[in-house]
Amino acid sequence: MMLNKSIMDGDNPDLTEERMKGTFDTDKMAALIYGSEKFARRRREISDCVSRIPQLADIKPYPFLTRDEKLMEGTRKISVLNHYLPAIIDKDNAAESLHLHQEVIGFEGHPLALHDSLFIPPLLTQGTDEQHEKWLGRAKRREIIGCYAQTEMGHGSNLRALETTATYDISTQEFILHTPTITALKWWPGNLGKSSNWAVVVADLVIKDTHYGAHMFMVQIRDEKTHEPLTGITVGDIGPKMAFNAADNGFLGFDHYRIPRDHLLMKYSRVEPDGTYIKPMHAKINYHGMVRVRSNMTTEQGLFLAHALTIAVRYSAVRRQGYLDDKSHEVKVLDYQTQQHRLFPSIARAYAFQFAGAETWKLYEQVLNGMKSGNVELMADLHALTSGLKSVVTHQTGEGIEQARMACGGHGYSMASYIFEIFGLAIGGCTYEGENMVMLLQLARYLVKSVELVQSGKSVGPMVAYLAEPDTKVDLTTGPEAYVKVFQHAARRQAWKATDKFHELMKSGQSRDIAWNNCAVELIRASRLHTRLYIMETFIRRVSSISDISIKKVLIDLVNVHVNYEVLDIGTYALEHVSSTQLDSIRSQLYSSLDTLRPNAVSLIDSFQISDMQLRSVLGRRDGHVYPNLFEWAKASPLNQTHVLPSVNQYLKPMMDKAKL
Amino acid sequence: MMLNKSIMDGDNPDLTEERMKGTFDTDKMAALIYGSEKFARRRREISDCVSRIPQLADIKPYPFLTRDEKLMEGTRKISVLNHYLPAIIDKDNAAESLHLHQEVIGFEGHPLALHDSLFIPPLLTQGTDEQHEKWLGRAKRREIIGCYAQTEMGHGSNLRALETTATYDISTQEFILHTPTITALKWWPGNLGKSSNWAVVVADLVIKDTHYGAHMFMVQIRDEKTHEPLTGITVGDIGPKMAFNAADNGFLGFDHYRIPRDHLLMKYSRVEPDGTYIKPMHAKINYHGMVRVRSNMTTEQGLFLAHALTIAVRYSAVRRQGYLDDKSHEVKVLDYQTQQHRLFPSIARAYAFQFAGAETWKLYEQVLNGMKSGNVELMADLHALTSGLKSVVTHQTGEGIEQARMACGGHGYSMASYIFEIFGLAIGGCTYEGENMVMLLQLARYLVKSVELVQSGKSVGPMVAYLAEPDTKVDLTTGPEAYVKVFQHAARRQAWKATDKFHELMKSGQSRDIAWNNCAVELIRASRLHTRLYIMETFIRRVSSISDISIKKVLIDLVNVHVNYEVLDIGTYALEHVSSTQLDSIRSQLYSSLDTLRPNAVSLIDSFQISDMQLRSVLGRRDGHVYPNLFEWAKASPLNQTHVLPSVNQYLKPMMDKAKL
Repeated sequence: MMLNKSIMDGDNPDLTEERMKGTFDTDKMAALIYGSEKFARRRREISDCVSRIPQLADIKPYPFLTRDEKLMEGTRKISVLNHYLPAIIDKDNAAESLHLHQEVIGFEGHPLALHDSLFIPPLLTQGTDEQHEKWLGRAKRREIIGCYAQTEMGHGSNLRALETTATYDISTQEFILHTPTITALKWWPGNLGKSSNWAVVVADLVIKDTHYGAHMFMVQIRDEKTHEPLTGITVGDIGPKMAFNAADNGFLGFDHYRIPRDHLLMKYSRVEPDGTYIKPMHAKINYHGMVRVRSNMTTEQGLFLAHALTIAVRYSAVRRQGYLDDKSHEVKVLDYQTQQHRLFPSIARAYAFQFAGAETWKLYEQVLNGMKSGNVELMADLHALTSGLKSVVTHQTGEGIEQARMACGGHGYSMASYIFEIFGLAIGGCTYEGENMVMLLQLARYLVKSVELVQSGKSVGPMVAYLAEPDTKVDLTTGPEAYVKVFQHAARRQAWKATDKFHELMKSGQSRDIAWNNCAVELIRASRLHTRLYIMETFIRRVSSISDISIKKVLIDLVNVHVNYEVLDIGTYALEHVSSTQLDSIRSQLYSSLDTLRPNAVSLIDSFQISDMQLRSVLGRRDGHVYPNLFEWAKASPLNQTHVLPSVNQYLKPMMDKAKL
Repeated sequence: MMLNKSIMDGDNPDLTEERMKGTFDTDKMAALIYGSEKFARRRREISDCVSRIPQLADIKPYPFLTRDEKLMEGTRKISVLNHYLPAIIDKDNAAESLHLHQEVIGFEGHPLALHDSLFIPPLLTQGTDEQHEKWLGRAKRREIIGCYAQTEMGHGSNLRALETTATYDISTQEFILHTPTITALKWWPGNLGKSSNWAVVVADLVIKDTHYGAHMFMVQIRDEKTHEPLTGITVGDIGPKMAFNAADNGFLGFDHYRIPRDHLLMKYSRVEPDGTYIKPMHAKINYHGMVRVRSNMTTEQGLFLAHALTIAVRYSAVRRQGYLDDKSHEVKVLDYQTQQHRLFPSIARAYAFQFAGAETWKLYEQVLNGMKSGNVELMADLHALTSGLKSVVTHQTGEGIEQARMACGGHGYSMASYIFEIFGLAIGGCTYEGENMVMLLQLARYLVKSVELVQSGKSVGPMVAYLAEPDTKVDLTTGPEAYVKVFQHAARRQAWKATDKFHELMKSGQSRDIAWNNCAVELIRASRLHTRLYIMETFIRRVSSISDISIKKVLIDLVNVHVNYEVLDIGTYALEHVSSTQLDSIRSQLYSSLDTLRPNAVSLIDSFQISDMQLRSVLGRRDGHVYPNLFEWAKASPLNQTHVLPSVNQYLKPMMDKAKL
């Protein structure tokens, strides 16, 4: 049995050659990446099963479809899956379900994408037993399709600024939902535009002229029979986007639209018939959903990166361009140092993100369990950690995907590579679930608070313990841990410096908010360094805990690429510890670590075991037969269904004919 | 008269407020940006004229069109322009023509985009008088539509590797064009897919089994009456791309396709009827076209960046989010330091690119004139300079555009912002006309050669004179020139270091090519530093030559942003000259320079005078009335032309109905 499980007869020999060089078992690596041998195996089984059901295949490559056709195809898939899903997976297993959906539907969206993830959860967590009785079963059986409508056109995730009002009318015991301005239109909610007939709407609760802030309401927006919008409702699709165009992100406006009192989700806060407001026990309970999504983003983004790298690394092993020693054969572009430098540090990050993601998710579950018993202690840590991770990881993922695309040369620019679609989807993560700058500043708040604690001699938690440590000289020849020390120094120095500056500005008379804004860039840098330190530490810790020798060996190679690359990247923040000469020697080490990694590059990305169906990329095919398939792909594209386009008959021919006169 | 000429009654007061703060005349700044008062005025006149011809308006926003519709719209525009163009511009004025086309057709392409720029020029420069007689008039009158077919599926700009053959058949005095493999298919040429009926084809000339390498041939590919592909020709569109989807980039294959001997463009090299080959005088003559395109790319990319920044800066002045001191009004997001840090250094670059672009173009014209009199001396300088600029500028432009998009928050992700389309177009420049890594390595060759000259005591040209200068201590408080010194130091140190490493590796026994590859990343860094130094120097030189005081003052502010930002960015390469403490003080200066620039931000981007038509962005509208127009845009989008989509009737309703049973 081969170590690399992707080898098959008839493959492009250039790829097989790479796979033969791999020094570890890719199934074992997959088990490490996906957290267990069992789930890694289930992934393969699910992919395999899907590949045998013709109805689950794409009717056409997605880039050939118009938006209408994409919506149609996503909807068709959901409908077919409704039938096949129970036979393929345990539907209560979220991870299996996610994999199945990504396999079958891909990344461009479908009409029920948010029904399960953002409509049912608030109903479940914020609704009373009576409300569950009324709607939960219907929602779960998909008698109704729902979405979560919070964001407004003029207002992102700032709940305080929401303009949509829900005014209680005591006389009829109804809430009157209203959109007072254009900027108050709900804008962006997924699946709101065309698919949903119900929505959980977040609106400012108003009782007798008193504003109680954001609350959630169950609102029917379309007729359940005709699917036409109900009177008083303005609803539609917000138009095409960078990516995710099989999803109908929507807008929603209310014109004094009335709903019964018991449509307020009342598990925590209530409004009595007479208009008495009962406030919730925990104000923070609402943030829970966002933290959950963010906790998962590191893993998810790492997988996006792995998708792009699978395509780029495989294609770099079959694409030949230019010459090195042998002038009779062009070389694989993967042999160029520049290509390795473009791709390998991203492979390291893709792995690092998986490990950091798994650790974050564990913390999330711990916090969740803690909260059930009233312990909210770790919530601030989790919030800080996920805010930082979300920002750093989405940024680095976007960067890595674009570099992967460019590493494919001209064909990377073709939608046949499909990398651009992955980029479009991944990069959205920089903005949604809390814009990156805002998130980094939230983490900064936590860091400044921690520095203040240290400065006043108090103790801090393990996540920021390094902030209190003394600055000691580091011997860089002692391995990855020394790089961690350098990173700790850089992160500590920056956190202290930003905190000091913040204090100084306040002392000089600036208000807290103004002072904060005036050192915002420095604060953000502190947050980034803190987060990158966390990722590096987690990576090293995870790798050192591995017992399988061949797996551990290649991952140590990967860690070496990572730490050299990362320290060089933040060099200017660590000048007390690394001299110009040392940086030069780290550079040399980086190049030799790229060289060491080279034979395992293809096996490392093969280990993510992303199927051809899920990749949807001509360049990234497992079998490496890129060029004939690129030709087939192009021939099948819509413009080639006729030799002479209508535009030629209508305009070009008359133009040429006239010129001949 | 207001200093900012974009102010109009009825505008969003938030934008007017910004424009009132501007300290300089935006028309004067436009004259500086576009090289002359006259051309800046002509741009405005052309935009104005176009806006009054309803037939030249977009039938719909481009993001709402399918690819077929985009091609149709681009073709319609070209046809209408054929009629109106002579009345609007002097058609021999290339700059006016470019502006007119960008205004009317935008950035997504049209069927004649390459006819004038890449089909006629080789015909003109490589064709004999008889060949001009035969085709040039027809091409200019547009009796035929042509393209330039060089790139192949398996081979980018490496002419040596082209596989398409043109074998001379002495018996019939014909060339037999043939595509021996799938990778030999012509792939990517613009307008080849569906529009052109002729092509200049680059193929390997073969006479009696001897390969003479790449030559150009005039080839008819489609019937002039029916527009059907001719027998022996396989032609089509290569499918959808990241951007530029109104253009039909195509593929082309030959099956022993015969053309007469005199279809070889024979001005420089010839094939006699008996098969005798006469070789050209200058081998390099073919590169000329690419250098021309590259010489123009700095200006072009700078304008792409200016487009994105116009959108982001204007929108940041009308978008309000969060609070600073005043808790009753949300602040303009442009007041956040993080937002300024995201956008202002890019504004500086957009200006710097215009100035560097103008200087490069001058050099190009100088070289062109020199070549006419047989002087090819400066050609190597120009090639090196444009290779570096092309790479650095496309990279920084892409980065800047994406940051601009993210600076628009969620709505940046909507195609209503249109920034993503600009990104897609601009980022293509990293790959076309010579892939960036390849280009940087070409510049590196020039730098290494220069260092070798210096090391052997010989003199070098002005462009690399700094490589020979001694390293002196720099006093950073003396202004921008001191920053140039720091940059020179960094660039010099890196060029020497990379050269030394290259020599060492060869001494250690590596072949030239292997050694080169093993220090490729270091070489590339030297090229980047060299190019960024050039951009900085040009920027400072141009600004110091300005006499108008108010224009000069704001541009000095912009230079300050630039030099602080740039030196921080390359800090790790200049450690002999800047300490950790000095870097901290440069950071402080950067933040205060952002603050200084703040009041002029909107006026600086208004000065590019990009019309609303050309911007095609709801967020970037001159009048700042973003939100109502965002709603109108969305309502007009294709999915909203019906309340109930076919996908709902076909799949979702039956699914919900079934669940109710």
